[in-house]
Amino acid sequence: MDYRELDGGREFVAGLDHGADWRTEIEALATDAGVDAGFFVALGAVQDVELFFYDQDRQEYDSVTFDEPLEVAACVGNVSWLDGDRFAHTHAVCSRADGSTVAGHLDSGTVFAGEVYLREFDAHLEREHDETTDLDLWPL
Amino acid sequence: MDYRELDGGREFVAGLDHGADWRTEIEALATDAGVDAGFFVALGAVQDVELFFYDQDRQEYDSVTFDEPLEVAACVGNVSWLDGDRFAHTHAVCSRADGSTVAGHLDSGTVFAGEVYLREFDAHLEREHDETTDLDLWPL
Amino acid sequence: MDYRELDGGREFVAGLDHGADWRTEIEALATDAGVDAGFFVALGAVQDVELFFYDQDRQEYDSVTFDEPLEVAACVGNVSWLDGDRFAHTHAVCSRADGSTVAGHLDSGTVFAGEVYLREFDAHLEREHDETTDLDLWPL
Repeated sequence: MDYRELDGGREFVAGLDHGADWRTEIEALATDAGVDAGFFVALGAVQDVELFFYDQDRQEYDSVTFDEPLEVAACVGNVSWLDGDRFAHTHAVCSRADGSTVAGHLDSGTVFAGEVYLREFDAHLEREHDETTDLDLWPL
Repeated sequence: MDYRELDGGREFVAGLDHGADWRTEIEALATDAGVDAGFFVALGAVQDVELFFYDQDRQEYDSVTFDEPLEVAACVGNVSWLDGDRFAHTHAVCSRADGSTVAGHLDSGTVFAGEVYLREFDAHLEREHDETTDLDLWPL
Repeated sequence: MDYRELDGGREFVAGLDHGADWRTEIEALATDAGVDAGFFVALGAVQDVELFFYDQDRQEYDSVTFDEPLEVAACVGNVSWLDGDRFAHTHAVCSRADGSTVAGHLDSGTVFAGEVYLREFDAHLEREHDETTDLDLWPL
């Protein structure tokens, strides 16, 4: 396990725009506020969602789309740099009226309403290709 | 996307009372400690839970109750003011012995055991009616 | 509800080792950094996972194992002392390619990739046996 101690930076709350994209909104927050690294938790609801699952054998993302209104029951993630842009690594658990759930790596989703807490780290974190997993991970 | 930078305030851990209501306990923590705004994460177990799903078309909450013991596998939320009281906006993912899950906006639930981390913001956040969604959201 | 105000301490991000155990890695982070109390959020993927469900009547943990690749869609927990060691109380929601989920108290799981944010409290928290629930909880 590799780790790094980081100084905490600024803290933000955000309300995501109705009709906008969930992940893009979090990245816009990071960009607008100049957050280079941080973690976030969020909750709310989406009008639809596209979730990724990483196939650990083929080492490729598979996608599944749910074109229906869903609560965002839990959303956790982090902000860092990837390929020259700020990237919000976003996982989410979504739920239906009967309580049933779908979850995964949230690639996109149309915001119904969303509330985000973002904690900045006073650091620059940048993802690099990891050979073992073929993912972009942090060199810590 | 609207956002606000907030100064971090105090930090609390709480153990929720066995047999009490999950959300009421979090609101009692906020009230007792005088927290006007903050975010929290929690975990534990409940003896039953009532989950809300917001019908985005009818713009009304539907409710579903699970009268069975459940783990609280993930709970995230925030504290702010609503209609003259502190309100803990609480989402949760709950699970059964076989790993199956139910999730949503947690309205109430009888605590079996619960552990909460609450981060205060040095701010007063108050919800106001939002016309687009018919929800009470933060003016940021 | 019992609670305690705690001073925030250091903050860490960690990348969990591919092939190692998810919970052991978080405990190794706490031990290596000398964190006696804290809370964390995490996300990533596992190659398998063993989830516990606490039977509230029998007051015993039941275990269910999923020997398949899963996203860790949401993971929340805390660090404190239990029986002379640092213990990472870890709950997680995991998901499959079709978005379906399993969740519970994460006892173990083989890391595919994992990213953790750990917030230290400047305190020593130690679990003690609680008679009502037969769990080890914090005296706050």
